[in-house]
Amino acid sequence: MNLTKTLTWTISALVLLPLFAAANVDIHDAPSRPKNMIIMIGDGMGPAYTSAYRYYQDNPDTEEIEQTVFDRLLVGMASTYPARKSGYVTDSAASATALATGVKSYNGAISVDVDKRPLTTIMQMAKARGMATGVAVTSQVNHATPAAFLTHNESRRNYDEIAQSYLSSDTDVILGGGQKFFPEALLEQFTAKGYQHISQLSQLDTLTQGKALGLFAEVQMPWVIDQQDSAQLSLLTQKALELLSQNEKGFVLLVEGSLIDWAGHNNDIASAMGEMHGFANAIEVVEQFVRANPDTLMVITADHNTGGLSIGANGEYAWDTALLQGIQASPATIAEQAIAIDDWQAFVSQQLGFELKQDELQRLSNARMQGKVALETSLKQLIDSRSFTGWTTSGHTGGDVQVFAAGPAADLFKGNQDNTNIAEKMMSLLPRQEQP
Amino acid sequence: MNLTKTLTWTISALVLLPLFAAANVDIHDAPSRPKNMIIMIGDGMGPAYTSAYRYYQDNPDTEEIEQTVFDRLLVGMASTYPARKSGYVTDSAASATALATGVKSYNGAISVDVDKRPLTTIMQMAKARGMATGVAVTSQVNHATPAAFLTHNESRRNYDEIAQSYLSSDTDVILGGGQKFFPEALLEQFTAKGYQHISQLSQLDTLTQGKALGLFAEVQMPWVIDQQDSAQLSLLTQKALELLSQNEKGFVLLVEGSLIDWAGHNNDIASAMGEMHGFANAIEVVEQFVRANPDTLMVITADHNTGGLSIGANGEYAWDTALLQGIQASPATIAEQAIAIDDWQAFVSQQLGFELKQDELQRLSNARMQGKVALETSLKQLIDSRSFTGWTTSGHTGGDVQVFAAGPAADLFKGNQDNTNIAEKMMSLLPRQEQP
Repeated sequence: MNLTKTLTWTISALVLLPLFAAANVDIHDAPSRPKNMIIMIGDGMGPAYTSAYRYYQDNPDTEEIEQTVFDRLLVGMASTYPARKSGYVTDSAASATALATGVKSYNGAISVDVDKRPLTTIMQMAKARGMATGVAVTSQVNHATPAAFLTHNESRRNYDEIAQSYLSSDTDVILGGGQKFFPEALLEQFTAKGYQHISQLSQLDTLTQGKALGLFAEVQMPWVIDQQDSAQLSLLTQKALELLSQNEKGFVLLVEGSLIDWAGHNNDIASAMGEMHGFANAIEVVEQFVRANPDTLMVITADHNTGGLSIGANGEYAWDTALLQGIQASPATIAEQAIAIDDWQAFVSQQLGFELKQDELQRLSNARMQGKVALETSLKQLIDSRSFTGWTTSGHTGGDVQVFAAGPAADLFKGNQDNTNIAEKMMSLLPRQEQP
Repeated sequence: MNLTKTLTWTISALVLLPLFAAANVDIHDAPSRPKNMIIMIGDGMGPAYTSAYRYYQDNPDTEEIEQTVFDRLLVGMASTYPARKSGYVTDSAASATALATGVKSYNGAISVDVDKRPLTTIMQMAKARGMATGVAVTSQVNHATPAAFLTHNESRRNYDEIAQSYLSSDTDVILGGGQKFFPEALLEQFTAKGYQHISQLSQLDTLTQGKALGLFAEVQMPWVIDQQDSAQLSLLTQKALELLSQNEKGFVLLVEGSLIDWAGHNNDIASAMGEMHGFANAIEVVEQFVRANPDTLMVITADHNTGGLSIGANGEYAWDTALLQGIQASPATIAEQAIAIDDWQAFVSQQLGFELKQDELQRLSNARMQGKVALETSLKQLIDSRSFTGWTTSGHTGGDVQVFAAGPAADLFKGNQDNTNIAEKMMSLLPRQEQP
């Protein structure tokens, strides 16, 4: 650790108290300090997603509507706006920077400030205290959110630089997609640093201790809805917890349901609900860990809203969850397969789980003649129309997101806060730094 | 009070304890009981509205983004779905019924159950305890939300029946719009029952005690943005508090920012922000009352989302609040006036507060030739496009809404809850009923 960094940390520690006060923390909530902290981010998971997921999970044959893990854990909300120069609507990089460092920056920033100077992250602070750190995500591991926790870069687009920089981050566990960004030469450097490298989920069992780099897909992990398996992120989360909890000084772990956002950008409600289910399952894994290890704090939030999703659209007071539950694959996969076969109409109807009307078939047929992308778009529009799902954008929106928490000091996160306050509160809960 | 009602109330009291437990109330939050309770409803005010209002209020020349009254008071969220037969998206009647009675019903129900039997309201329970009751709203006073608190009807559309039934509700203070539904004969019956009746805001000073019926508009109160005056609802709220607080046994007051919803139905962001400002001002009046009278609980929520509003739209990561702040009148009013004059282009540009581009002028000109409604629609689309505002529907959407609270037992409302739980919790805080 060099002198500049020591100074940065000391300054961080000194400014925490007033920042903490600014976040309107109630003195009566004075928490016991957690040993371990887990931050979980549902990328793009605005409030409409958690409500939609509740109804998507609902059994329409019972009078009751069951609560979800989100309902159990809700404590507050957070604003997400980036630094002034980027307006009111954040991207994932600026919001991850806010959540990892407690500082607002510009859209595209990976834990650097508006002048592109590195900001101290909670992961760096944890490392300085001898704690273990890790990330488990469904995007490539060098995507904006994990990147802002593990490194610094002036642009989220510098994927190769970001991957390379993970070598010096000293992160203990890195699990997710992104093989494309870790060429053989880089993997050898990780191995030389003591990392065990795996590339198949079935190899997870071989990780029992030490540093681990698991890359399970070229870029992002496959859609939950295409796998008909929502356990991917749960498995990564479980393994990360198992490895990190071997450190007696505790750990900080980031878990991200990254593809909720990607489905939102695609305005793809069927895939979005699959990703929500995968993320909810991972939260339940962490919830169980917190029950078994009551010295662990879990904090869950979203970095922003994506897509302007609404439950109900076009003047209809309805949302057809039964229809959504019946969809067998992502519109992208259905379109790809339907392009390749002659008897595509029966196939599409079977994959969607409902009979197609004549005008719907005609629209799909016209789209199919224009190719896969047009057919995928047409399928998504059909699903939206039939299920009464609304979208306003292929990008992000600026509404507040929810905050969920359990474990020691969970009460600190209740009520309204800014996303930077979440980082400040978590940083304030780290153990005091030992004297050199 | 007849025997049936007494029995209903006794049963209500008996079932409150288990209901209370079902709402996951933390025993450590055991509240002191409030003397007075004020429930405030932002009709249609989904989470995007309070975020949007924060940025609408923001001064873009300062680095800081100031907190609003909503940020100060947020404690939790609520689900809003109606009874199973009406699906997942509620209307204002079913949600007001849930908030007034603690029971889910069908869309259109005014405090009757799915079999159209009357449900006991919190206002009836307050009356049975000798407390005062009142409503102050910006819609007509017999609109769905106040109606569900004051009466019972199988349909929200039975406006005349609902107005007539207020006579027997024994409500102390009724303030809002709706002159059209209170003909002279009915007003005479109110006067005979001891009500002082006024029809101008300037007459509010004449109300100093006793029962009051104030109807200040034919139907709804005028748009805040057209008044350039956001004090209407504040004045009604202030007067209601002044009259009701004379009752030494306390009171229950409903305040509704009714027209937030109407602006949402119209997909009219300029008018929506004006109504949000009027509602926020009324909340600040109540907040001051709670500070001065710490035995008063205030609970604020929305009955549902309207319009599928999003901050940012069409792929843009932006929201232009400066543009919205410059708009001088509602699109409806601008359209009405622009139809009547020749030099409409300069007028429209002046009212909108920005220069119009040639293609925008052409679209407005084409719309103007089709009449007022087309011009109003075209103006709203222009404002949405320029400000990057998104909408998905002219109706309601099914996402959860926020819950805000202050005063004794405010902590009861934290975290996630159903809208029926809000009523149950408030009912449980009423004083024990005196023995006959």
